[in-house]
Amino acid sequence: MVTKGFFPGSFDPPTLGHLDLMRRAAVVVDELVVGVGINAEKTPWLPARERVALLKEMAPKGVEVISFTGLAVEAARAAGAGLIVRGMRAFADVDFETQMALANRKLASDLETVLLVASTEVAHISGRLVRDVHRAGGDVSHFVPPMVVAALQKR
Amino acid sequence: MVTKGFFPGSFDPPTLGHLDLMRRAAVVVDELVVGVGINAEKTPWLPARERVALLKEMAPKGVEVISFTGLAVEAARAAGAGLIVRGMRAFADVDFETQMALANRKLASDLETVLLVASTEVAHISGRLVRDVHRAGGDVSHFVPPMVVAALQKR
Amino acid sequence: MVTKGFFPGSFDPPTLGHLDLMRRAAVVVDELVVGVGINAEKTPWLPARERVALLKEMAPKGVEVISFTGLAVEAARAAGAGLIVRGMRAFADVDFETQMALANRKLASDLETVLLVASTEVAHISGRLVRDVHRAGGDVSHFVPPMVVAALQKR
Amino acid sequence: MVTKGFFPGSFDPPTLGHLDLMRRAAVVVDELVVGVGINAEKTPWLPARERVALLKEMAPKGVEVISFTGLAVEAARAAGAGLIVRGMRAFADVDFETQMALANRKLASDLETVLLVASTEVAHISGRLVRDVHRAGGDVSHFVPPMVVAALQKR
Amino acid sequence: MVTKGFFPGSFDPPTLGHLDLMRRAAVVVDELVVGVGINAEKTPWLPARERVALLKEMAPKGVEVISFTGLAVEAARAAGAGLIVRGMRAFADVDFETQMALANRKLASDLETVLLVASTEVAHISGRLVRDVHRAGGDVSHFVPPMVVAALQKR
Amino acid sequence: MVTKGFFPGSFDPPTLGHLDLMRRAAVVVDELVVGVGINAEKTPWLPARERVALLKEMAPKGVEVISFTGLAVEAARAAGAGLIVRGMRAFADVDFETQMALANRKLASDLETVLLVASTEVAHISGRLVRDVHRAGGDVSHFVPPMVVAALQKR
Repeated sequence: MVTKGFFPGSFDPPTLGHLDLMRRAAVVVDELVVGVGINAEKTPWLPARERVALLKEMAPKGVEVISFTGLAVEAARAAGAGLIVRGMRAFADVDFETQMALANRKLASDLETVLLVASTEVAHISGRLVRDVHRAGGDVSHFVPPMVVAALQKR
Repeated sequence: MVTKGFFPGSFDPPTLGHLDLMRRAAVVVDELVVGVGINAEKTPWLPARERVALLKEMAPKGVEVISFTGLAVEAARAAGAGLIVRGMRAFADVDFETQMALANRKLASDLETVLLVASTEVAHISGRLVRDVHRAGGDVSHFVPPMVVAALQKR
Repeated sequence: MVTKGFFPGSFDPPTLGHLDLMRRAAVVVDELVVGVGINAEKTPWLPARERVALLKEMAPKGVEVISFTGLAVEAARAAGAGLIVRGMRAFADVDFETQMALANRKLASDLETVLLVASTEVAHISGRLVRDVHRAGGDVSHFVPPMVVAALQKR
Repeated sequence: MVTKGFFPGSFDPPTLGHLDLMRRAAVVVDELVVGVGINAEKTPWLPARERVALLKEMAPKGVEVISFTGLAVEAARAAGAGLIVRGMRAFADVDFETQMALANRKLASDLETVLLVASTEVAHISGRLVRDVHRAGGDVSHFVPPMVVAALQKR
Repeated sequence: MVTKGFFPGSFDPPTLGHLDLMRRAAVVVDELVVGVGINAEKTPWLPARERVALLKEMAPKGVEVISFTGLAVEAARAAGAGLIVRGMRAFADVDFETQMALANRKLASDLETVLLVASTEVAHISGRLVRDVHRAGGDVSHFVPPMVVAALQKR
Repeated sequence: MVTKGFFPGSFDPPTLGHLDLMRRAAVVVDELVVGVGINAEKTPWLPARERVALLKEMAPKGVEVISFTGLAVEAARAAGAGLIVRGMRAFADVDFETQMALANRKLASDLETVLLVASTEVAHISGRLVRDVHRAGGDVSHFVPPMVVAALQKR
């Protein structure tokens, strides 16, 4: 069978952790769609259009990048995906990821969530960390790919 | 691509949690091999041969069951699997599973581990729980499939 | 002795998890008072009056529902309760609940906190999950009782 | 209603943490039965008879102490208890306690488990710690009541 | 060698937990600099100037108190510190503290983070707890030193 | 002041994680003593003498290696150390390490424990992992230094 995975997130901004996950997902699924969630009630740091553009630039060949509103499980289905792919940094994600996986199972029982263990080199990276370090004038090149560094410098 | 997954464990005894995982894995992989690990230094509760037989009886159609000695990653490779599949009960497994996934990545960088979130109905079940309840004279039919109940009653 | 328990929370909105806890509490206390906390500095999703009305509608017979401002321990005392009852979903609540129990013990040493383990069927439900799914246009009937579904549809 | 609680454990040896829990339980239940579990497959550090005797000596007035074999839920029922009472030291107990509470709920759906948060002064104490410190020649009087110190000195 | 430690935080407000950590740090470092972080994007509860003044008043003799903007690691270097000192309350801090320590290591590989285990008497105290209890009209003297109690009463 | 740290453990076998910690400790303490605990009631994998010899061979220059029986805090004092140094791998160690730090504080209030965050490259390594992989015929050179690899090959 051809497996298609959906990797939803806010990607605000995209990080080396997201890149690590996209690469790992290639072992698990035949096709991967990255979905940038748009939440009308929250003002993002980077506009959705820019997050999509950056993800397209950094994503391994063949990975599709879209944006979506509404439920991740609906976006996964609309994209024809049978799996939701999420990363698990060893520390803080476990509660959130299992809670979301269980909730998504209630919302769409045919979609299974697979969790991939993040590389130890990137397990400490989060969007919030990048935003905090950048705001404090720090060098975020340890945490995000070069095109995101460039985009942040232009702000 | 055809994805083959390897689900290693001690399965001492096989539980409803293992059955739940085998069913979930069918969404992720085309073929699944369940591998009963034989550890020469530990005396198991049920002999490996019996665990293999019970798993064969309870496994969904098409799932292969083998036993193996040595490293799980070597057994996965020998079985032609590109993925290691493990379950994550929400509670205690996280540390152990991520540690094992990271160690296996060092031992076999081409094998990726995917973690599936256990069903809430079985997330509290462990081999140790079953052994403890059975030894105490309790009814383990809430925790293991009927064929395992039957096998334990014969002991 | 007659034991009276106080179950404080924001209940924004009330969920099946809260209902599960109210039912469990009946084994532990003779009388239960549910206290809807009003925090003047936060704008709630549902007005306090509506949360109280929904809780009254869904609560098992005999459970009292009130709203309160100020400290939960003061509201518990004012209600004549000797116990604070809280639920523990297996995942994320532990830190918060133990921290709150220890702080409440400092604030009111005569009030003991009892933690009841949530049913696995509802352990993944949180107010935030319900709000997020509802905003995204999803079906929240897996997470909240029918009267809350109806109330949310009217918004 | 008159509430009777059952506090099962191995109590090998009884510690200040167990004493703390017995005192806290008095706020929750009218009567408390402490049950010393006898596991025929494990050799205890202190004989069950000695553990029972020490617990009787240290327990607050009115607390009953018994020993039991088999399932804790059966012993609770035999003792006429409707609640199982367990302590939660903030750290390591959460997984184990929730897993046990959920398993006990399957084995005896009429028995509810209540978790009481241990006092911070004793939250780090465990039977294993006491055994390790005593074996290493250390002073365990910070961890166990005087009668247990005395009993250990006689060994 | 003379070791200088930097203890960064928001201290909004300073608590007995911070005082506990300052005292413990004296065993580890020869000199300690407490750094009050100023985040231009967040409105604090207490103004930075007041937090600095309160920390100076409550700090053990010889402890220096400064405020800083930007990265904690840059402030540590500017203060001539070779160590970052942080407390670990047993519960919720672990993820945050390890993530921050790993990120700081990327940002400044010559600075090591040392974590000191908080005293059990203060491990449940957080700035948010103090703010919540104070807003609710509760007595925060269990959680903060007398000069902070006095400052809060004047607000 | 001259700070001396004591790093106790079983080191069965010594790993790259222990080496990482010894290097990190050099930023925190002027002198470091590594203490190999001898537990008369447990049969170790490697004899204490061999563990001491391997640690001496792999330790950075200036680090002292001793063996000890009895309490770690007594050994620390006997070695003239004012600090106990332990590593914290991000995952499983937190409970154990904080529990031990709090217990040691009761046993020796003048000794402070400092926890250093392990490098992400070695955070998944444990003695048990090494023993399991070696027994299974796997290559442990990812987990232990070359001299330990050599010693294990001779067994």
